[in-house]
Amino acid sequence: MTIPKLSATTFIGVSGRGIISFGSGQPDLAPPKRVYKALSQCKDFKYGLIQGKIKLRKALARQYPKSTADNFVITNGASEALDLTLRVLAKTDNKKKNKVLLPRPYYYSYPWLVKYAGLRPVYTNLVNGRIDFDDFKKKVKECKAVIINSPSNPTGRVESMETLKKIEKLTNDSGIYVLSDEVYKDLIYIRENYLIKGPHVITINSFSKTYAMCGLRVGYLWSLDKKLVDKIIEMKTHTSMNTSILSQEMAYEATKLPRSFVDKQLKIWRQRRDFIYEGLLEIGLDLWKPEGAFYVMPKIKNPVDFVWDMFKKYKVITYPGEWFGSNDRVRFSYALDTQKIEEGLSRVKKYLAKEGSSHFIR
Amino acid sequence: MTIPKLSATTFIGVSGRGIISFGSGQPDLAPPKRVYKALSQCKDFKYGLIQGKIKLRKALARQYPKSTADNFVITNGASEALDLTLRVLAKTDNKKKNKVLLPRPYYYSYPWLVKYAGLRPVYTNLVNGRIDFDDFKKKVKECKAVIINSPSNPTGRVESMETLKKIEKLTNDSGIYVLSDEVYKDLIYIRENYLIKGPHVITINSFSKTYAMCGLRVGYLWSLDKKLVDKIIEMKTHTSMNTSILSQEMAYEATKLPRSFVDKQLKIWRQRRDFIYEGLLEIGLDLWKPEGAFYVMPKIKNPVDFVWDMFKKYKVITYPGEWFGSNDRVRFSYALDTQKIEEGLSRVKKYLAKEGSSHFIR
Repeated sequence: MTIPKLSATTFIGVSGRGIISFGSGQPDLAPPKRVYKALSQCKDFKYGLIQGKIKLRKALARQYPKSTADNFVITNGASEALDLTLRVLAKTDNKKKNKVLLPRPYYYSYPWLVKYAGLRPVYTNLVNGRIDFDDFKKKVKECKAVIINSPSNPTGRVESMETLKKIEKLTNDSGIYVLSDEVYKDLIYIRENYLIKGPHVITINSFSKTYAMCGLRVGYLWSLDKKLVDKIIEMKTHTSMNTSILSQEMAYEATKLPRSFVDKQLKIWRQRRDFIYEGLLEIGLDLWKPEGAFYVMPKIKNPVDFVWDMFKKYKVITYPGEWFGSNDRVRFSYALDTQKIEEGLSRVKKYLAKEGSSHFIR
Repeated sequence: MTIPKLSATTFIGVSGRGIISFGSGQPDLAPPKRVYKALSQCKDFKYGLIQGKIKLRKALARQYPKSTADNFVITNGASEALDLTLRVLAKTDNKKKNKVLLPRPYYYSYPWLVKYAGLRPVYTNLVNGRIDFDDFKKKVKECKAVIINSPSNPTGRVESMETLKKIEKLTNDSGIYVLSDEVYKDLIYIRENYLIKGPHVITINSFSKTYAMCGLRVGYLWSLDKKLVDKIIEMKTHTSMNTSILSQEMAYEATKLPRSFVDKQLKIWRQRRDFIYEGLLEIGLDLWKPEGAFYVMPKIKNPVDFVWDMFKKYKVITYPGEWFGSNDRVRFSYALDTQKIEEGLSRVKKYLAKEGSSHFIR
């Protein structure tokens, strides 16, 4: 029997019929009721400003230091913010400097986006799930930019404040752009988010994860470098124009929610985090303790076999680490309720008990 | 006094206070009531298929020959469809073949999109507002692709069926891709739309113009080349993911509207077309008779002066032809009611009477 190649589309739309999915990278929680308000107020659907609705950017400016609405661009999700930024950076300053540093494991789109922009990915391997600053320092020198993703999808780890501050200083001193993908900034279990700052920083964010609005595609970028912002707007004028004005209205409603909304959600995520972390430890897997986002990435020997077997024989969806640049791990998303997590873990346990040591790495 | 450089942002958001705008490229008409229905039915906002909602693609498949839902990708407006297609084509087949032919005057984003994708625009000048097939034939030979835009923004002209069929055959025979931007396909005054077909054709379309939904950003592409479609989906997975699911729901409602909706709109557009065409002729300007879309592009000597003067002194917005690759013309959009068109034309007449021959080209 030939096993078809696993790909990101293998599991798309697969649900129901007793399937437990640790696959999907999106909240299962309901969006806040408030955002539905925008729907009844919508009158017409004319083009909006390419940069995004002023009231939405003004609301964001109140959340970011030294900022006005001019420092933001509203995009089709964080994806478009990353894509536009990389494409503009490829044409900026020294065009021969074409490397972008990616901590590995990485979010699966990063290498693609870097290459699509005509740039070249180089990698620094995480140690214990976090950036090894010595290796980072060595490799970043010859780079035009670096993508930081803390909390990280897929690792669930959060970089230490100390590391982030050292990265901030080093990159600023050496004129290296930082794309800081902070889409999980509101899902951190160990401390407040630390915002990397500086004229060389482009912060990428989104309403998708915090407000369970993934399908509406509202992300944004923030930068103090107004010339760069203008170049990004110019490019977006041609490549997609304004982000859906209706989605933006809903995002604007979300900005009015009190902090308590996020705190309540965080409590649920923390319970799930504890539950799956303890469960996987108990099964005997080697893993990093998740500190943010909703992913955990245990070590598994023969991870592709594991993913296929769990899917075919036990109806459990997980993603192989190789999609994220990690050949000896599997990614579990815990964006599902604890009952389902429990059932999923018991199937994993059953399978591993049967397969014995062929899947354990200690 | 120094005159600031005219740019596409000069007039953005400029309205009211007695201003008559022949600038904006979007319908002033109301969107169909039916599309609002989708708003009350929306429950959650999870990620959707990158390719687009199946029901929407199925509805489109019924409008296109030999097609299933697999032949479509729903995009963030026609802009993203063009951008993705050009980016994928740049990596397809012979990478050294990097030229894209653009009939000139062109839609202002085309040269940008071609260059962003790492390709090179080459031009064939329109004769009497239409493609000169002899010149086209000569130039297209060394090209990887050509963008056809009939009806055209900015010229308002429609290519003859004969030319379109000749282009269809020539490009098919020589393996040249055709990007057929047909976003004004429902706004043709002289005949039905002719759909360019073939395995080498990517048709770009949109709900923006026909249904006055520009700001919702729902476009799509149609191609019989499934491998190409798959490559475009793969790229979109990383660059923007699904198109706003709510906007797609509204587009789906629009697909249920009867043909009479389009016919009714077309009647209004035709009246306006007749009105502005007769009016500009009467003023004495040299122009092509508009056959589709809602633009007209008279010849004007010193068009940049004309545009500035009309704006500053007469509060009339028009766009200089140079934005569209035409240095001796000005673009008027007639997406405004006939009373306003009348008032705008009377101001143009007043101004030209004063300036005399300095603006006339005959």
